[in-house]
Amino acid sequence: MIVYLVGAGPGAPDLLTLRAARLLEQADIVFYDALVHPDTIALATQAQKFPVGKRCGKHSTAQQFINKRLVDAAKRYGVVVRLKGGDPMMFGRAQEEIAALEEAGIACEVVPGITAALAAAAQIKTSLTQRGSARSITFATPRVGASEPDSTWIGALAAADAGAIYMGVGEAGLIAQALIASGKPPGLPVAVVESASLPEQRIRYTTLADLPGVAQATITGPALILLGPQFRARANEIAERCRSEKRAATA
Amino acid sequence: MIVYLVGAGPGAPDLLTLRAARLLEQADIVFYDALVHPDTIALATQAQKFPVGKRCGKHSTAQQFINKRLVDAAKRYGVVVRLKGGDPMMFGRAQEEIAALEEAGIACEVVPGITAALAAAAQIKTSLTQRGSARSITFATPRVGASEPDSTWIGALAAADAGAIYMGVGEAGLIAQALIASGKPPGLPVAVVESASLPEQRIRYTTLADLPGVAQATITGPALILLGPQFRARANEIAERCRSEKRAATA
Repeated sequence: MIVYLVGAGPGAPDLLTLRAARLLEQADIVFYDALVHPDTIALATQAQKFPVGKRCGKHSTAQQFINKRLVDAAKRYGVVVRLKGGDPMMFGRAQEEIAALEEAGIACEVVPGITAALAAAAQIKTSLTQRGSARSITFATPRVGASEPDSTWIGALAAADAGAIYMGVGEAGLIAQALIASGKPPGLPVAVVESASLPEQRIRYTTLADLPGVAQATITGPALILLGPQFRARANEIAERCRSEKRAATA
Repeated sequence: MIVYLVGAGPGAPDLLTLRAARLLEQADIVFYDALVHPDTIALATQAQKFPVGKRCGKHSTAQQFINKRLVDAAKRYGVVVRLKGGDPMMFGRAQEEIAALEEAGIACEVVPGITAALAAAAQIKTSLTQRGSARSITFATPRVGASEPDSTWIGALAAADAGAIYMGVGEAGLIAQALIASGKPPGLPVAVVESASLPEQRIRYTTLADLPGVAQATITGPALILLGPQFRARANEIAERCRSEKRAATA
């Protein structure tokens, strides 16, 4: 009896690690998040498979239920996999699951996954850190637990050269306003990458000042917001491509 | 002719992605970083394989040489893989390679990899972000280019709830001093994870004030420094285990 908390990566099934694929093949039972790709879940050919997706606003009850199911499963099966979107150690609630397992005396291991920011950066071919312009990047989210106090996440984004904001599209107005008030330039380049690595992926280039309008008007899927001076190059390139296409269309 | 910039992950060969493994199998030529595991390189059964490791202090000459070799190889081979330690978009010089390829009119794609911070967090089973205590984490490095001015990286670490410092062991004294001067408590929990995911992995728990001594005395391999309130739980657990072992030994 061992429980593996496994990162499923950003979406594309082939961005899973070799270790994760092997564990899925060996699994007796798999509990998976809502956003995990069906082809990834299908690798667990011998396992019973259960979705444990959570809906907004019902987190804490659902989380306790997931914790209990993991503990119960570990007592009955040899290889239990808890398959989580992205990386388990970034903006998930893996720590609560680990604590519940450890309290019950159950061994667990964590298998890392490609987190959304790495997949998004790869897709837009723009490094998250860059010599001379972006030596630091802050990963943050505006999503909070029900009883959680305000924290320093806006200050942490404002102080870093670059930022990656998870689950932030719904709060784009607040984010832009607070970062501009904290001294970030309204023209700071922003890239919004929706459904990174999947066929339905969409990329929007904008600026901090224009982010709220772009987020509200065009983003429908799970999206990552990247901001920093290095996202300017791609924005210029896209603008140039649009101009070329317009010239070609009117010629 | 296409060049793939591929993340090899943190060290353990099975923390490579399925996509990266497939591209290595298809590669005609592979240029690999010094820290990539031999078993990972060995996946490229059909390829010519060349190390392009860089040594400290000789970065810019070597980087231009790597750029040129990639461009030359792309003109002669169908599938060129540039295999980089960790993730290509985090603390590497992938952007310079991408720029050189694009200037030469050569197509390139980036395949993400597990970056060291995710692997280290998995190994110590401690989430990089945690509800209520660590909503933001800054990734930073003290390593600078020769002509690069001082930047805001210490301020970015100081402002975030948690931090992951790459290539920072040699600057541990500076880091601790500057972060304490910026308001971080001297007792802030720190985990130093050396050679994350490899058999030679070593984990040290300490505090910000004691980090310089620990770094100087005991760290010899490539190491990641993690700091934040969430690294306390593991430190307490280790201390308790040591006390139990001492009690058992003297009983």
